[in-house]
Amino acid sequence: ELHEIQESNDNSINQFFLIVMGVLVMFMQSGFAFLEAGSVRQKNVVNILIKNILDCLKGAIIWWACGFAFAYGDLDIPSAANKFIGHKYFFTQGWEDFENFHANWFFQYVFAATAATIVSGAVAERTQFGSYVIYSTFITGFVYPVVAHWAWSGTGWLTSSPIPSFRRKVFDCESLSYKFDDDDVIAFADFAGSAVVHCTGGIAALMGAFFLGPRVGKYERVGGKRVSKQLAGHSVPLAALGGFILFVGFMAFNGGSALAIVSSGEIVDNGQAVASAIMNTLVGGASGAVFCLGLSILVPVIKGEDHYWSLLTTINGGLGGMASLCAGCNDMTTGAAFGIGGIAGMTVYWVGNALDRIGIDDPIDAFAVHFGGGVCGILLAPLFANFGIARQPSCGVQKDAFGEVWAACNVAEPVDMELFECDYYAYKQFAWNLIGLIVITLWSGSLVGGVFAVLKATKLLRVEEEIEIRGLDIKKHGEPGYPLAAQGHGWEERSSS
Amino acid sequence: ELHEIQESNDNSINQFFLIVMGVLVMFMQSGFAFLEAGSVRQKNVVNILIKNILDCLKGAIIWWACGFAFAYGDLDIPSAANKFIGHKYFFTQGWEDFENFHANWFFQYVFAATAATIVSGAVAERTQFGSYVIYSTFITGFVYPVVAHWAWSGTGWLTSSPIPSFRRKVFDCESLSYKFDDDDVIAFADFAGSAVVHCTGGIAALMGAFFLGPRVGKYERVGGKRVSKQLAGHSVPLAALGGFILFVGFMAFNGGSALAIVSSGEIVDNGQAVASAIMNTLVGGASGAVFCLGLSILVPVIKGEDHYWSLLTTINGGLGGMASLCAGCNDMTTGAAFGIGGIAGMTVYWVGNALDRIGIDDPIDAFAVHFGGGVCGILLAPLFANFGIARQPSCGVQKDAFGEVWAACNVAEPVDMELFECDYYAYKQFAWNLIGLIVITLWSGSLVGGVFAVLKATKLLRVEEEIEIRGLDIKKHGEPGYPLAAQGHGWEERSSS
Amino acid sequence: ELHEIQESNDNSINQFFLIVMGVLVMFMQSGFAFLEAGSVRQKNVVNILIKNILDCLKGAIIWWACGFAFAYGDLDIPSAANKFIGHKYFFTQGWEDFENFHANWFFQYVFAATAATIVSGAVAERTQFGSYVIYSTFITGFVYPVVAHWAWSGTGWLTSSPIPSFRRKVFDCESLSYKFDDDDVIAFADFAGSAVVHCTGGIAALMGAFFLGPRVGKYERVGGKRVSKQLAGHSVPLAALGGFILFVGFMAFNGGSALAIVSSGEIVDNGQAVASAIMNTLVGGASGAVFCLGLSILVPVIKGEDHYWSLLTTINGGLGGMASLCAGCNDMTTGAAFGIGGIAGMTVYWVGNALDRIGIDDPIDAFAVHFGGGVCGILLAPLFANFGIARQPSCGVQKDAFGEVWAACNVAEPVDMELFECDYYAYKQFAWNLIGLIVITLWSGSLVGGVFAVLKATKLLRVEEEIEIRGLDIKKHGEPGYPLAAQGHGWEERSSS
Repeated sequence: ELHEIQESNDNSINQFFLIVMGVLVMFMQSGFAFLEAGSVRQKNVVNILIKNILDCLKGAIIWWACGFAFAYGDLDIPSAANKFIGHKYFFTQGWEDFENFHANWFFQYVFAATAATIVSGAVAERTQFGSYVIYSTFITGFVYPVVAHWAWSGTGWLTSSPIPSFRRKVFDCESLSYKFDDDDVIAFADFAGSAVVHCTGGIAALMGAFFLGPRVGKYERVGGKRVSKQLAGHSVPLAALGGFILFVGFMAFNGGSALAIVSSGEIVDNGQAVASAIMNTLVGGASGAVFCLGLSILVPVIKGEDHYWSLLTTINGGLGGMASLCAGCNDMTTGAAFGIGGIAGMTVYWVGNALDRIGIDDPIDAFAVHFGGGVCGILLAPLFANFGIARQPSCGVQKDAFGEVWAACNVAEPVDMELFECDYYAYKQFAWNLIGLIVITLWSGSLVGGVFAVLKATKLLRVEEEIEIRGLDIKKHGEPGYPLAAQGHGWEERSSS
Repeated sequence: ELHEIQESNDNSINQFFLIVMGVLVMFMQSGFAFLEAGSVRQKNVVNILIKNILDCLKGAIIWWACGFAFAYGDLDIPSAANKFIGHKYFFTQGWEDFENFHANWFFQYVFAATAATIVSGAVAERTQFGSYVIYSTFITGFVYPVVAHWAWSGTGWLTSSPIPSFRRKVFDCESLSYKFDDDDVIAFADFAGSAVVHCTGGIAALMGAFFLGPRVGKYERVGGKRVSKQLAGHSVPLAALGGFILFVGFMAFNGGSALAIVSSGEIVDNGQAVASAIMNTLVGGASGAVFCLGLSILVPVIKGEDHYWSLLTTINGGLGGMASLCAGCNDMTTGAAFGIGGIAGMTVYWVGNALDRIGIDDPIDAFAVHFGGGVCGILLAPLFANFGIARQPSCGVQKDAFGEVWAACNVAEPVDMELFECDYYAYKQFAWNLIGLIVITLWSGSLVGGVFAVLKATKLLRVEEEIEIRGLDIKKHGEPGYPLAAQGHGWEERSSS
Repeated sequence: ELHEIQESNDNSINQFFLIVMGVLVMFMQSGFAFLEAGSVRQKNVVNILIKNILDCLKGAIIWWACGFAFAYGDLDIPSAANKFIGHKYFFTQGWEDFENFHANWFFQYVFAATAATIVSGAVAERTQFGSYVIYSTFITGFVYPVVAHWAWSGTGWLTSSPIPSFRRKVFDCESLSYKFDDDDVIAFADFAGSAVVHCTGGIAALMGAFFLGPRVGKYERVGGKRVSKQLAGHSVPLAALGGFILFVGFMAFNGGSALAIVSSGEIVDNGQAVASAIMNTLVGGASGAVFCLGLSILVPVIKGEDHYWSLLTTINGGLGGMASLCAGCNDMTTGAAFGIGGIAGMTVYWVGNALDRIGIDDPIDAFAVHFGGGVCGILLAPLFANFGIARQPSCGVQKDAFGEVWAACNVAEPVDMELFECDYYAYKQFAWNLIGLIVITLWSGSLVGGVFAVLKATKLLRVEEEIEIRGLDIKKHGEPGYPLAAQGHGWEERSSS
């Protein structure tokens, strides 16, 4: 009886953990909102804010209606599970047997909302409201949930690689030969969503920016050459507010992905798992910010151009660094986190510039930050994390240790080194992460790209040019961000320098 | 010994829960502050912010001095409890025996602060600072605490209905007749404060707006007809910031109202209670936002007028939806939450417009959101929650089941259907919630209205017309919100389109 | 086994507690950022924001590299501990045996970041970016960690006073004379950092403001007399946002300093410790705000000058009050907290004005708030806390009770009152806190002052006058805070009054 009460309490504590972390991640929605709001021109600030608020609110309804069902809708009978898509719990029907349903629903919801809201920045200042409703609903309700099902439901195809050799190789003493261990199948390693959330959101952002085309005035042809003009956002402080909220929220995003803080029935130091994920995310994000800022100083210095300590570059580098830590922050040294975050930060700088050079207008560098950072994470974790190639015994080391393996079998000496085979487990983990990344990118890119293409073909995608030039807020939302009549006052102010 | 340590730890975890939820709810104070700050004109932004900050800080002193005492000041000796008002623990004197006093004090404080701060938006841009101090102190220190005592202290008159028949009716096998079960008395069902917090704050807001009268320039007489002019606030982004913070904070407001996360001595899935309250609040709020926005589009479309996707309408609808979920979010299906929230969202739109039509100037629709949303919650929960009329067995169903009741008594057949009486428990719950709502509204409205009336009669209520027209910030606070001399810089900016 | 699982879970819950509190304290970084951003002129807002973001991010790298090592780098072998400075765990090397390393690292990091970021406000609008990087790195990486080692590592010299008589005096029945109890040595009482964090940050802020000198235009000579001009910040709402976030974050700053929420092996009501720290911090902060605001009204009223209800004064008073509660909020009555906070609030007002009168330009009163508040806390706690002079038995009371002490020894009557000696334990606690405060102030002030002096001598400290006058943002960061080209829109707005 006491023991059952304890188990029930442990269960409640885990729900408490999911709720607190979930609320902090939900707050990231306002982080995205204000990073984007500060990065658009004043004439479109209401437009970007209402999209972000609806991503958060409308997204909850869609996640309730079908998103959660597609993602996690077959957990009760694993044997009957579909590897591609969930198919139960629409509108929470029939979920009675699902343990901690509400807390899990909420925590997974905030991740789904994140994937959708990444796109809004890339398509800012020129998208029809109706188009936004369609693509955003489609991502939250179908594209993202399917990816989450593959990687995180426990029954998706990415969870256990179907490739026969993508298993741990163990030496079998009976047959004196190597066998693959069916209990140690390689799973897609994406702890908190470098690929599931950030690459999905990032590639969708790219599709949006590509099909919409650049904002009026962004590129000019000067002597046959494309010249990019800076269309600065209207408020760096608002953008910085968003950045701060996102940095803080990322602690919960990656820390909460441990999904539990206590454990009944066995000793698991969940607290340490959560805390190390947070420490690595923080150091990796810091490294991303510093290296991104550093590169943005170094490049112009080398070119002999003016250089600036840009706040927005710092923020984007930090966010890219944190996005890169999602994949493996739970299982790497802080030094590895520092390295991966730094590479991600430089990647953000490079991808952002490259995209601009080829004429794709992504107003807040959503693709560079989320896809760039995400790709770094999903591919560098299998290199440098504790399970990664650089930390695993090399073929030579394995060979040197084969004598012990042989001895453990208690068969006659001498060791038959002819029988030795190298285990490339860590390399296969890398390959499986690469395969997953490619499939997720193709899935999300083609589906979201398709929707944008259809919207473009039907002329529903982009606002009329006059409205784009003069601003969306007043015409579409009836609300200027800062109404003229509400400014100023009737007094003389004390002057100062 | 181990068991006692465990109980002590469980107790600490519950305090941890109250603290974390309380801190998140405390953050809602800045949500109200910025929703209001963005919704007033620039000339009054400092005025509204200092009121909100003082509501939060000064309120803590008042809650310590007497608020908590009036609300919860007789918990140690229930038999000596006063059904109307608490009377101990002034300045925390004598509270030593009150378990988890500090954590409970803090969590209840953030609710009291919320009730008071709701009013500041409705009376914005025209109230004397002294008047504000008086009404705000009165609400936090007396009006709200008494209501909280009635409904939430466990010893108040609303907790157990004194009406003899407002009990569960059970069939008594000895007398072969129905009796009322004294252990199942109907209690006011207001889990997180649809009535206690939101109706109290909302009706107080109405009283303020009514006695103050509209702002200069709000209404004009054109040909004998009142024409309402829009006095837009100065910053939609600030208002949106407030809205975001409130949405996130509402998760803790309603989730934290479970008051505990673990339980010693019996199995209670507190985690599920908290998480389902949060999920329902989120979906209900989202529904409120969508239906409020939808109605605000539908009405002008039907009338053939221009329609706009208004951000502020969306936010108010969402807040109204969440306020409506306070009453029963802990005990309803998500479908019911969706329905109740949606009705609340439409109510917000309708009440806000109605108030404007009759010439009451509530700058941020505080009455519509909080009273409108709160009334929907307190009356719709007894209809659609799990304990509600729509989910209880109807009279016919009860009659059909009377045979089983009869059989359970082990008396001779046949069933004497003449003895059957229908139980209208769910209807009585509705009636008791309605009675509570009426009394709370009368209490809060008349007391706060009285204070405003006295302030008006003594000419202390409203600032001089010149100060109102030219703005309160410089004259009253010596601080323009955005000092002119601090704007601008001395460089030429790179131009863009 | 079950017991071990329970201990592991308790451990995880404590890490959960540290993580949640740490994330909320980390959010305070944006509180400082926006309080400062609103308090500088528009032309320097990006400059102050990037400094605050880098304090938060870069600080994590430095804390990982060496800060944590200097502060807590000898915890595994207390006998080999260095009383002055830690010397292990650089880049987290060798920390495997350190329990809950990651969670502790994170929680201590947010405090280190706070100490550094306090300075940025005092040196705002005129400091070279390179100078900022140097002093900020120095504080986070060396100055603050050493102070933390002294007071908080458990092995530092402040933890147990080396002065022989700074122990509890107990009557020894064998020798019939008083002895000092070696198990009850006086420790520096600074629960959450009134001195460790706030005095360190505050004195460093003063050094910066002193060596930099006032901003251009701050002081004018009129007839040989220095006249202070107000260089108001550009946005009170941004500053208020910062203030709100700091108030909320302070709940976690002081509450989290209990460092644990559950306890294995003994009954400790950690929850109560945390909750009472929070309640006291809140009431003390509120008192600080009210008394600071009150004094700022009272003084001009007495002088017959105009008076204003200033929001920024209210915020600074509240912050000073909360900083003063850090020292003893865990162990005092709420009445004592109210008194200490109120004194701190008045101190903030007085110190801020005094500094301005002697011509030191601290744009956000960082010294007044943090050093002023901190000193009040570290010296008033030993007066009014539960362990303080005012709450301890006086010499006379001790004398009256000497008969009982005598009787407890079971020796022959009559009581030999000649043997009575008074115990001045509480006075010694005060003295030890005073000594600690002086040493911390000298250490932090001289080191940081030295760095600023060297930077000044090498002309690296301050930006060129033209850049200061015209603003740092465009020249140094390439980003105006509110780009002109991004303002406005192309529509006519509906007018209102």
